[in-house]
Amino acid sequence: MTDARTALVISAHAADFVWRCGGAIALHQQKGWEVTVVCLSYGERGESAKLWKEPGMTLEKVKAARRREAEAAAEALGVHDIRFMDLGDYPLVLEREDKDRLVALIRAVQPRFMLSHSAYDPYNTDHMYTTQVAMEARMIAQAWGHEPGQKVLGAPQLYLFEPHQTEQMGWKPDTFLDITPVWDRKRAAIECMEGQHHLWDYYTNVAENRANHFRRNSGGQAGGRPAQYAEGFQSVYPRCVDEL
Amino acid sequence: MTDARTALVISAHAADFVWRCGGAIALHQQKGWEVTVVCLSYGERGESAKLWKEPGMTLEKVKAARRREAEAAAEALGVHDIRFMDLGDYPLVLEREDKDRLVALIRAVQPRFMLSHSAYDPYNTDHMYTTQVAMEARMIAQAWGHEPGQKVLGAPQLYLFEPHQTEQMGWKPDTFLDITPVWDRKRAAIECMEGQHHLWDYYTNVAENRANHFRRNSGGQAGGRPAQYAEGFQSVYPRCVDEL
Amino acid sequence: MTDARTALVISAHAADFVWRCGGAIALHQQKGWEVTVVCLSYGERGESAKLWKEPGMTLEKVKAARRREAEAAAEALGVHDIRFMDLGDYPLVLEREDKDRLVALIRAVQPRFMLSHSAYDPYNTDHMYTTQVAMEARMIAQAWGHEPGQKVLGAPQLYLFEPHQTEQMGWKPDTFLDITPVWDRKRAAIECMEGQHHLWDYYTNVAENRANHFRRNSGGQAGGRPAQYAEGFQSVYPRCVDEL
Amino acid sequence: MTDARTALVISAHAADFVWRCGGAIALHQQKGWEVTVVCLSYGERGESAKLWKEPGMTLEKVKAARRREAEAAAEALGVHDIRFMDLGDYPLVLEREDKDRLVALIRAVQPRFMLSHSAYDPYNTDHMYTTQVAMEARMIAQAWGHEPGQKVLGAPQLYLFEPHQTEQMGWKPDTFLDITPVWDRKRAAIECMEGQHHLWDYYTNVAENRANHFRRNSGGQAGGRPAQYAEGFQSVYPRCVDEL
Amino acid sequence: MTDARTALVISAHAADFVWRCGGAIALHQQKGWEVTVVCLSYGERGESAKLWKEPGMTLEKVKAARRREAEAAAEALGVHDIRFMDLGDYPLVLEREDKDRLVALIRAVQPRFMLSHSAYDPYNTDHMYTTQVAMEARMIAQAWGHEPGQKVLGAPQLYLFEPHQTEQMGWKPDTFLDITPVWDRKRAAIECMEGQHHLWDYYTNVAENRANHFRRNSGGQAGGRPAQYAEGFQSVYPRCVDEL
Amino acid sequence: MTDARTALVISAHAADFVWRCGGAIALHQQKGWEVTVVCLSYGERGESAKLWKEPGMTLEKVKAARRREAEAAAEALGVHDIRFMDLGDYPLVLEREDKDRLVALIRAVQPRFMLSHSAYDPYNTDHMYTTQVAMEARMIAQAWGHEPGQKVLGAPQLYLFEPHQTEQMGWKPDTFLDITPVWDRKRAAIECMEGQHHLWDYYTNVAENRANHFRRNSGGQAGGRPAQYAEGFQSVYPRCVDEL
Repeated sequence: MTDARTALVISAHAADFVWRCGGAIALHQQKGWEVTVVCLSYGERGESAKLWKEPGMTLEKVKAARRREAEAAAEALGVHDIRFMDLGDYPLVLEREDKDRLVALIRAVQPRFMLSHSAYDPYNTDHMYTTQVAMEARMIAQAWGHEPGQKVLGAPQLYLFEPHQTEQMGWKPDTFLDITPVWDRKRAAIECMEGQHHLWDYYTNVAENRANHFRRNSGGQAGGRPAQYAEGFQSVYPRCVDEL
Repeated sequence: MTDARTALVISAHAADFVWRCGGAIALHQQKGWEVTVVCLSYGERGESAKLWKEPGMTLEKVKAARRREAEAAAEALGVHDIRFMDLGDYPLVLEREDKDRLVALIRAVQPRFMLSHSAYDPYNTDHMYTTQVAMEARMIAQAWGHEPGQKVLGAPQLYLFEPHQTEQMGWKPDTFLDITPVWDRKRAAIECMEGQHHLWDYYTNVAENRANHFRRNSGGQAGGRPAQYAEGFQSVYPRCVDEL
Repeated sequence: MTDARTALVISAHAADFVWRCGGAIALHQQKGWEVTVVCLSYGERGESAKLWKEPGMTLEKVKAARRREAEAAAEALGVHDIRFMDLGDYPLVLEREDKDRLVALIRAVQPRFMLSHSAYDPYNTDHMYTTQVAMEARMIAQAWGHEPGQKVLGAPQLYLFEPHQTEQMGWKPDTFLDITPVWDRKRAAIECMEGQHHLWDYYTNVAENRANHFRRNSGGQAGGRPAQYAEGFQSVYPRCVDEL
Repeated sequence: MTDARTALVISAHAADFVWRCGGAIALHQQKGWEVTVVCLSYGERGESAKLWKEPGMTLEKVKAARRREAEAAAEALGVHDIRFMDLGDYPLVLEREDKDRLVALIRAVQPRFMLSHSAYDPYNTDHMYTTQVAMEARMIAQAWGHEPGQKVLGAPQLYLFEPHQTEQMGWKPDTFLDITPVWDRKRAAIECMEGQHHLWDYYTNVAENRANHFRRNSGGQAGGRPAQYAEGFQSVYPRCVDEL
Repeated sequence: MTDARTALVISAHAADFVWRCGGAIALHQQKGWEVTVVCLSYGERGESAKLWKEPGMTLEKVKAARRREAEAAAEALGVHDIRFMDLGDYPLVLEREDKDRLVALIRAVQPRFMLSHSAYDPYNTDHMYTTQVAMEARMIAQAWGHEPGQKVLGAPQLYLFEPHQTEQMGWKPDTFLDITPVWDRKRAAIECMEGQHHLWDYYTNVAENRANHFRRNSGGQAGGRPAQYAEGFQSVYPRCVDEL
Repeated sequence: MTDARTALVISAHAADFVWRCGGAIALHQQKGWEVTVVCLSYGERGESAKLWKEPGMTLEKVKAARRREAEAAAEALGVHDIRFMDLGDYPLVLEREDKDRLVALIRAVQPRFMLSHSAYDPYNTDHMYTTQVAMEARMIAQAWGHEPGQKVLGAPQLYLFEPHQTEQMGWKPDTFLDITPVWDRKRAAIECMEGQHHLWDYYTNVAENRANHFRRNSGGQAGGRPAQYAEGFQSVYPRCVDEL
């Protein structure tokens, strides 16, 4: 178990991990990684408009429905473990003890890389807050004096996955991942999100166009790799390499 | 020969490739790559102050001295091929035919990656001009209608190597390369630059401190790699990968 | 009433709405809009130096004086409704229930656009905090699960009005509004601010110079509109149009 | 004729105006505007890979084919007038007399707005050079001492249309245009570009996803306009308005 | 003479030095400095609209009129020396020999600081081009191999003076200069610019408001210096100091 | 005492003031200034890895050890007064009353300038949080209504001292200070930090290389000042001067 390569996705709301990095999850699982997803909230207030338009809806019913969708999507993607912190949304707020729970999870997972939201999002302050918390929790997990005796965290990359309306968020991808081999699984996971049907084709278009960027950046008309679906990510920290 | 992995360094002045990416050159050569260096000028007017303080100095003498130094440094680094375009400096200017010569070289080398200067440099407009030219030449080399029949260029990464006073240039490294195995060769190449003795220790300090950054970003106090010397690079284009 | 076009100004301190968007308020009122202003604080601690220099001054007296001034200015501008949340200043802090009150106000007003402070202000952290809160409250007001049954908010533009020392705040106007027809009302409102006499001419100069920018950008020496007074605004979100 | 509302598109290569603002052209033509397109080059060297792969191809044949495609696309969009300056590409260079010809065209058209490329493009230096030239030509066209007696230019907006890989170009749209009414015409124009078949679906995806942004920014789940296809633009200059 | 403290203003057009740094010139002259101004052009085509509206105007007449105004303004400010390079405007272009003449002037003056335009200006490409040239000429003037034997340049600060519409130019002042003691001279110089009467009050407003910034940044309501007129500048290079 | 020139360093953790501005402290003390240092925490959890690796370590022991080191370093630098607020680290959090204590200290010191961390730090959120707090506390200290009767603060510069990995923090120095006269004291203070031996040479390299920047910016090969050790700082606010 200790030898497994692991990754951790920190998702503000229940569905974010599907649209934004479902391909990365499925691909790494397929390659033998163990990918854990933590949903800080269910997106029950702010990202469940369709459910709230139904008669007799309650917060608990929405949360249950959102959880079922997220679990189904996680199943489709082969997620190793999915956790729900149920911290509320719009706005999402983490108290000190919530942060400590997140730090404990990070240390338990010992991810080689982490995935979270864009650093800025004027449409969705939960998203940028999540990234701030991810950075803070990563820092605490590295502290030898936090819960001394636990294994401290190394220096995993923090990839920022693709937000909605990338240019408004100031998000710039520096890494394109070919998810062609697992596209069927991502599309299946997307189709678990019944309440957000209007986004199914949107993120399919995104995947197709990111594949165009993959082809262009891997050689273009002179040898580019024929990816059909891709995802983009922005790195927060520099890479350490032995070859350029 | 066609199977060799190749790289190309575009250096505004004769010495730039030594300070800024000498480690990358030596390391890749050691790993079996063929690294070509093209010096657009000798830095004869603007980067040879010590020589000009000697009596009886002429432009030709300076250029000859600078060339000898650069060739010696290239030898120390194991450079596959070094070219001098002798285009003049302070300011450096490339006419259309000079750009075509550069394009021809790029196509002949077919580099998997290229190295050049920072995108901005208010101290040294030759440097930022070189990067503009590198981007333009890369684009022309990709054009199927430029010298039809020649093998067109794919989409090599353009790494911007470390400028002097990084923060003033707006340069931000996203890649650190461990050059510990070839540090002796880089230091030997540096010591070929007799006219710029004041920079020997400066760039040794840089290499030591970049190794600190390498250690920090590869795990810090919890598993960081014990690099002793490193170089930093900024990527212009996104990477295409199969695993994060 | 439901057919009225409405706008909402979120002002950190009692006087901000006067200097920064008094013209926009008066102009839209004149055109039949209903403009509501909410002052999160009176600016009683940090923006009332002149009052505090008087003997026997107390916090309550300052707040009362500031409120009187703000109400008089609102009257001069024709403000539809002015609200005082009295949340304290230097620093301004909104607890969760304060944010909920602000969200309730936003939903009640259903503004077609909102106005608030610049996104950055190293002189006045209350200002940038107010903008963060405005974005967060806008997001919550859009959530179908927040107070279900209430009318949710659409997607009003958030205009950032002109801060003091624009360049230090990184504020860049993308919209100039001709306030010539209502300048007298803005000047009258400005003159209600007895405690900040040193700013009367400052913001008159601003209005004159912004009119120069209006003239320049509407045609310059070849047909520019002869505005005499103007205000500038920075948009946070893109516009949706049927004609460029 | 002098009363017609006019616009001018400055396109680096023959096909750019189709992908990037074909909808805006067709829509404005439909509304009674007269839209002129000027192609600075045919994109004959750098954007005609498919043609160059055919046997016996020559520069003249490529240019003729590209011109035919562009003319057919212009026809499909209802372009008022299309001009070809035939200045060469990869790299595109304008001499002083070429700039003067462009200025003369701008003055003849007297556009209410102009359209050109993103301000930065590390993949395609022709694109960013074109925008520099567009700004310079706009400035010269405003000069009363340039060809005195001619009608000088006012202050038309310069919209930057959507580049390929928006985030890499630092392009941020601030205006979304609903092109649903003319989508069929844009798609027809796109299908005139036989040499770039791989981009047909790419830009259809772009139009669909920009419509999602249009819906989101015009009201989202609470009243957003049901656009099906849209285009995005970035403004260089501020707007002058009488109402926010 | 060699002991005099010297400064150099590089002005794209004949009037720029007056509006943008007339106070700095007069103040330093008053303190015993010798300030040289070089006008690269007269602004004869692009900044002389009023003259061109007169009947029978010719380029030579405009240039003569502009020169007289500039000389009168220089006289009012006490400029040590004013040079006119007459290189043309809209667009301004410097050939290699023009740059060499500028370098020769810089070396002759040996300025302790230089003044020029903002780094970006989408309204006036002559302005940003001038700043590029100023940086390039400064670099060449520092080259020991350029005209060997001449005294090379040290490392003078390059201050960017205030452009029109500061926020659109991305200009951010980091230095405010109190010009109260010489305001009368600056206003007198401004009034020499008969062709641009519409800017007299504009730049008076600017000076008054910059003084407000000076007061605020030197202590505000707790000890700020009572400047009545000020100018702002942005530094390109870091300062070297012995005390913070 | 009231006549002394005073400065205040706000240090997130106990050791930061040593690495980042020890030279500035010692130099100003030597010149007769009184420099106060406030350490918001001891860095006991996050910056004491070496201590935590010892058996039987406790939080109190770590804090005591860190305090001893900081006091010894302060002694070596000649710090006028050092305060420890003991607010905890990783994460550092200031409640309202903690901020009030900090404001009280600022008012008591009445610094002519303040020193704190970079505005951004994705590795160490305590650092950027400290800078936010420094700005907020500075603002509150300027408020006449905060603890009326106390002497309010003027407008001291806030210098941001050098972070680790400057480019990742977006930190750009605009001021270099020659600390050659007090280097021995800074090195002595550095050597008090026994738990962070790996940083001794790192920050010595930094000081040497910053001196290279000092020499370059004060004249380079034509008259640069021969500094051997320097520190760099970024200013938040503009300077107010009587001479450029």
